[in-house]
Amino acid sequence: MSILIKDVLLNGKETSIYIEGNRISEIGAKVEADFVIDGTDKAIFPGLVNTHTHSAMTLLRSYSDDLRLQEWLEGNIWPLEAKLTEDDVYWGSKLACLEMIKTGTTCFNDMYWFMKGTARAVEEMGLRAVLAEAFIDLFKEEMAEEMKKKTMDFVKHVRGMNNERITPALGPHAIYTVSKESLEWIREFSDRENLQIHFHLAETERENEDCKRMYGRGPVEFLENIGFLSHRLIAAHSIWLKEKEIKTLRENGVKISHNPTSNLKLASGVMPYPLMRNSGISVSLGTDGCASNNNLDMFEEMKIAAITQKGFTKDPTVMPAREVLKIATINGGKALGLNVGEIKEGYLADIILIDLKRPELTPRHDLISNLVYSANGSCVDTTICNGEILMQNRRVNGEESILRKAQSVAEDLINR
Amino acid sequence: MSILIKDVLLNGKETSIYIEGNRISEIGAKVEADFVIDGTDKAIFPGLVNTHTHSAMTLLRSYSDDLRLQEWLEGNIWPLEAKLTEDDVYWGSKLACLEMIKTGTTCFNDMYWFMKGTARAVEEMGLRAVLAEAFIDLFKEEMAEEMKKKTMDFVKHVRGMNNERITPALGPHAIYTVSKESLEWIREFSDRENLQIHFHLAETERENEDCKRMYGRGPVEFLENIGFLSHRLIAAHSIWLKEKEIKTLRENGVKISHNPTSNLKLASGVMPYPLMRNSGISVSLGTDGCASNNNLDMFEEMKIAAITQKGFTKDPTVMPAREVLKIATINGGKALGLNVGEIKEGYLADIILIDLKRPELTPRHDLISNLVYSANGSCVDTTICNGEILMQNRRVNGEESILRKAQSVAEDLINR
Repeated sequence: MSILIKDVLLNGKETSIYIEGNRISEIGAKVEADFVIDGTDKAIFPGLVNTHTHSAMTLLRSYSDDLRLQEWLEGNIWPLEAKLTEDDVYWGSKLACLEMIKTGTTCFNDMYWFMKGTARAVEEMGLRAVLAEAFIDLFKEEMAEEMKKKTMDFVKHVRGMNNERITPALGPHAIYTVSKESLEWIREFSDRENLQIHFHLAETERENEDCKRMYGRGPVEFLENIGFLSHRLIAAHSIWLKEKEIKTLRENGVKISHNPTSNLKLASGVMPYPLMRNSGISVSLGTDGCASNNNLDMFEEMKIAAITQKGFTKDPTVMPAREVLKIATINGGKALGLNVGEIKEGYLADIILIDLKRPELTPRHDLISNLVYSANGSCVDTTICNGEILMQNRRVNGEESILRKAQSVAEDLINR
Repeated sequence: MSILIKDVLLNGKETSIYIEGNRISEIGAKVEADFVIDGTDKAIFPGLVNTHTHSAMTLLRSYSDDLRLQEWLEGNIWPLEAKLTEDDVYWGSKLACLEMIKTGTTCFNDMYWFMKGTARAVEEMGLRAVLAEAFIDLFKEEMAEEMKKKTMDFVKHVRGMNNERITPALGPHAIYTVSKESLEWIREFSDRENLQIHFHLAETERENEDCKRMYGRGPVEFLENIGFLSHRLIAAHSIWLKEKEIKTLRENGVKISHNPTSNLKLASGVMPYPLMRNSGISVSLGTDGCASNNNLDMFEEMKIAAITQKGFTKDPTVMPAREVLKIATINGGKALGLNVGEIKEGYLADIILIDLKRPELTPRHDLISNLVYSANGSCVDTTICNGEILMQNRRVNGEESILRKAQSVAEDLINR
């Protein structure tokens, strides 16, 4: 199928965008197409890229807030997660995909349990995703063997789906939940099979202290020592890092996923962005799961990222609007190794149209400032992924039935 | 006119709300009414109360971001403000009112220039507001006399409008822009005419240092000393305060308007909320103007307030969802001395209906958590102020023409 988006605002100028198959094929040409979208009063941007989430946790939205991390995890989240089924994960991920489509995210990086459920949801909903089955062995050999099997099985499953939108990856949870031997196995498997690794790194101060107690060194030094660091590694959170550690990560090609809302809400800390920027390490943006954010709105995440860095560093010039938009698009695409995040000929057609006739976007002295500091996801009118229209005029097919079913699955999970 | 909102969710239970004239007249009764709203799949909440903004500054949205305060004010904001006319202020305020209606704010506290323009916009748009002409004398006697005249003239003008939704107030800008003598005059005028005072207090560290240099004491001690503190005073920002100063403010009945987004974005600092909470002082919430926020969405403001306090105090239990909702509603109503902010018989009918069929509000383990941590203003379906329906199904009368005109007024202001 071909799509022509006519008379749409791109970088401040009206133009037309021609999509053929799953690619942006031409910019500027007004050729014939199977389907024409009127871009009047709309601006075109790349779909946002969410590089750290647990989409199925959308089922736990508003289940447990305002608690200390330990109480939140051990008293509320984990007991519920112990009851999860693949079907729950499927419905949680359907709901998450719906929310992402409605708020302009076209691609996400997910690590969780029962990921076949998420893969099925992504296949049906039309988004692009990098999916990893979570790997937690709690330092037990038997559990590690089981996790290896699950990991290999999931990779094989996704490859068998043969869906160009879905990429398998590896999901070792964190240093405090995965043994050294398993991390080594994962790195080796990643090299052999060319798979990205999605990992939680230095999220809390306690994690770093525990690592020092256990391995006699901080997390970055420990990981470097066992050869775990690589250009395939995406490290979420990455708060409690010193300049030298950031340099080590950069030298090894590691990518960072910044998750400011979750970090503030759980009082985990604030990522040292200026140090990262100065080191030249690649920083992208993620919402984390809905149990700790509590939404998947990357527009909100951009604003919170920017104003938090300004407030904490006491420098209002840090992370300006253009930089945070790049972090949420281009950098995300690069981190995931995908040809997305820019409106360019030859790039994958992962695109959003912004409705410019909204009070929040008026006046328009600077559209990018408006997107970052004033907009939220509901300013998105149209979402296209891989050349398919997933939302137009804010309508997504089957929306009501997904909401109804997800609500009943969530209630059932609580009462189970 | 009477309105019946049928089968709507109130505090977790379905009920009906009967509005007669401008009041909530009965809860639970299903009596005949002139107009019936179907509340199915909707929840009712009090309209949000924004206790510190400069609505006409919406014209400057996205005009100037990511700059240091001094450069921002002196290089960008003030030169534009010098060119403002009452007509600009009227259109900026119309746009602001439109945004507030669409995001569920029914009442706001405003201080700015040419406030007759704002009063006219509020009258037409149907919101409730407390309006103060800004008072800046730069320590010059001649300017002070002119400001006194303008202040008295504006109070007389608003009273002459005889609109129950619009209350006049006094708007001395700050310690560093208003002389001691003028502050004394304002306090006296406030007492005599029973007028609230809207004031910027302790917004930046520099403000406090300058005050000490000028008057030999910190802002709170200085204001107490000249008898400026009273139960009619609403102090915005109020960041750089110590425990003892907060106690002094509380003892004098002063109300605080907390403005977290603006404070982070301009890197002014973070308000010591736990100290305020422990002292028992009344804290409400405000967005500040759109030149420093950059929107008027009080839902976003609630989330940013809560997660910022958690992040800065390193305590995720600080400012839980119910507390921040109270801050944005009940406390706002009390600060402004208005019978709003609660859904109760006898209260003014300033009401919003939340559309529950939204991905962000699904599942609904806890609706208030969802409102604070996941929603944004676009979850509001219906806005009622003073018993009048201002928005239903997200439609506001005349919306498109306000956007068009405000855009052209803003462009003209820049190019003037």
